[in-house]
Amino acid sequence: MTRPEYETTQAESLAWLASAHVQAESTLHTLDTDEREGFQRRIERLIEHCACGEDRIAHRGASLGDIENTDWSSTDQIYDLENHPHGKGTGARTRLFARAVKKYLREEYIHESRPPADLIHVTCTGYASPSAAQHMVESRGWGAQTRITHAYHMGCYAAIPALRIARGFVLAGDVMPGAAPRVDIVHTELCSLHLDPSTHTPEQLVVQSLFADGFIRYSVSADADGRGFDVLALSETIVPDSADAMTWVVSDWGMQMSLARDVPARIAAPLRTFVHGLFEKAGLDPVADFSESVFAVHPGGPKIIDEVCQLLSLSDDQVTASRTVLFDFGNMSSATLPHIWMRILDDAAVASGTPVLSLAFGPGLTICGSLFRKR
Amino acid sequence: MTRPEYETTQAESLAWLASAHVQAESTLHTLDTDEREGFQRRIERLIEHCACGEDRIAHRGASLGDIENTDWSSTDQIYDLENHPHGKGTGARTRLFARAVKKYLREEYIHESRPPADLIHVTCTGYASPSAAQHMVESRGWGAQTRITHAYHMGCYAAIPALRIARGFVLAGDVMPGAAPRVDIVHTELCSLHLDPSTHTPEQLVVQSLFADGFIRYSVSADADGRGFDVLALSETIVPDSADAMTWVVSDWGMQMSLARDVPARIAAPLRTFVHGLFEKAGLDPVADFSESVFAVHPGGPKIIDEVCQLLSLSDDQVTASRTVLFDFGNMSSATLPHIWMRILDDAAVASGTPVLSLAFGPGLTICGSLFRKR
Repeated sequence: MTRPEYETTQAESLAWLASAHVQAESTLHTLDTDEREGFQRRIERLIEHCACGEDRIAHRGASLGDIENTDWSSTDQIYDLENHPHGKGTGARTRLFARAVKKYLREEYIHESRPPADLIHVTCTGYASPSAAQHMVESRGWGAQTRITHAYHMGCYAAIPALRIARGFVLAGDVMPGAAPRVDIVHTELCSLHLDPSTHTPEQLVVQSLFADGFIRYSVSADADGRGFDVLALSETIVPDSADAMTWVVSDWGMQMSLARDVPARIAAPLRTFVHGLFEKAGLDPVADFSESVFAVHPGGPKIIDEVCQLLSLSDDQVTASRTVLFDFGNMSSATLPHIWMRILDDAAVASGTPVLSLAFGPGLTICGSLFRKR
Repeated sequence: MTRPEYETTQAESLAWLASAHVQAESTLHTLDTDEREGFQRRIERLIEHCACGEDRIAHRGASLGDIENTDWSSTDQIYDLENHPHGKGTGARTRLFARAVKKYLREEYIHESRPPADLIHVTCTGYASPSAAQHMVESRGWGAQTRITHAYHMGCYAAIPALRIARGFVLAGDVMPGAAPRVDIVHTELCSLHLDPSTHTPEQLVVQSLFADGFIRYSVSADADGRGFDVLALSETIVPDSADAMTWVVSDWGMQMSLARDVPARIAAPLRTFVHGLFEKAGLDPVADFSESVFAVHPGGPKIIDEVCQLLSLSDDQVTASRTVLFDFGNMSSATLPHIWMRILDDAAVASGTPVLSLAFGPGLTICGSLFRKR
């Protein structure tokens, strides 16, 4: 994992958010000083009421310097809100994404001597071709060895489809001469690029207080030795009648999210059956092995972890990594689950042989899950 | 395959294009009647000079009624050029994409009784989640049987990565109870959504005269019986120092393409080695089997087929399907190669056992290839 270039505390981040909303409103409706102050009080109350607070998220990272800046006239920002009350258009956001991710991928691979057979680039926050993955592979002279797959626009659960794709590549064993027999998966999520501070709904304030940027890489191979996880089972399902509960759509000012309040409840309904199915698919005991398991739950928001804990009767110890990743970094979309996996791998308190059940959620509503065993 | 709702002859299409450019210029610079007529003559000359003509493309399909309409004030169009000289913003284009593709997928699967184990949705022309694939699967009640993978933003060559992903899924054999052991691949390309008639460069006129919409579905399975192809080998490479030759970027007015004039020449350089490698990988003879092969060449433009023919010393007969698909439908981005495959499958003149070599190109520059054998 690599931390984004900029980072703020959640307190700073929420103050910035309030200021951004005030400026957007002021630009759109030419507020006078009194109106501006009135609106500021209103938005601060709203943020206090519905945003994710400092008790659940300590810091959030971003690839754009905007988050340290409240000079809203600065035209080299995405959020130059005096000129663009929604923030700049989608083109400018995509260009910033492309620059930041190109830099990350170059640095991520700078000490890598062998090209992977496959590189799966996962993101739902920026689409420019050639992608940063293609640029890196070409610049390293790996163009004939490394195949690139874009696993784009699958939202927060994308690590599981990426693993599913990687598993197939490993089984195919189609490795070009000179390449290492491994599939690299690289997540680059720049969620901070997709705010629209001119929309002051509670829904948008929740989203804007929760999401953050994240970068992480890991590998999948047939090799069963050394540090890592064995993948025992992967599973996915779409919750009936829930298509409208969460949307993520390429729009005029970046990408636009909608998020219904009842997402945790809708996900909860089929969850016990889903988890039971994963244990069966993996050939594990849904009772004995369950109680020994650690759970990597994508922290869509703080509520979803609480909901999953209650529903599956989990102890706090079983979801420590999920809570601490949310606390340390916020919701980094698809990059979050891999960050949780790294924590579990590094955690000496999680013994070798421990089953690790992962859950992630996204538009569909889609529930994705995996069952690993820690080596 | 399903034809898009609207279709025009290339002559009509080029006349529409000229008219659109005149209106965009007129809206941007408030031209008077003389200036408008002067600009019209200029743009018609330019189109005649650089656009793909009626001799190479007969018709192009589109999912938006705009192409039959030159009332530029109509606000229910994407190209309401009196109000929006670039056409409407990316949000409106994405919404139209989502509607059209939802309709197509519903109809495509209406008579399908068994859910596929996997559905790979391939597109580089619209990203909205839940996707049309997720909507269809949910509405058919297949949410627990069919896993959905978005293979997005890989440009014209995406059918080959999609096949590569599908091959892995088939090898994994992870089929949920009730699902058919097959992977469906569905391409939905709405290239006609991404024009900007305010940019009058030869490069943009080439692009705007070439691309069209296309929808197609096919399946991959372990089953080696019946009509179809056996997949013998897949291969991909990135051409060195060619990243700038072709770009496809999510922007303010849909997606923006850049296309250097020398793309055919850059692709040509490594092509002979690439094709030779594919025959070797497939265990076929690069001389004897080569001369018996049929070639499915993605018709990026008419020139690329000519270039490939010359470079590999192919006869016209060996590329018939590639030329006729371009002639009948235009360049439908990633949907084009599968249309060519269908033609070859339907063509009684191509005997069972014939090797079919496919080539497709896109940003990177990436060259993708496959070697099939017709059953």
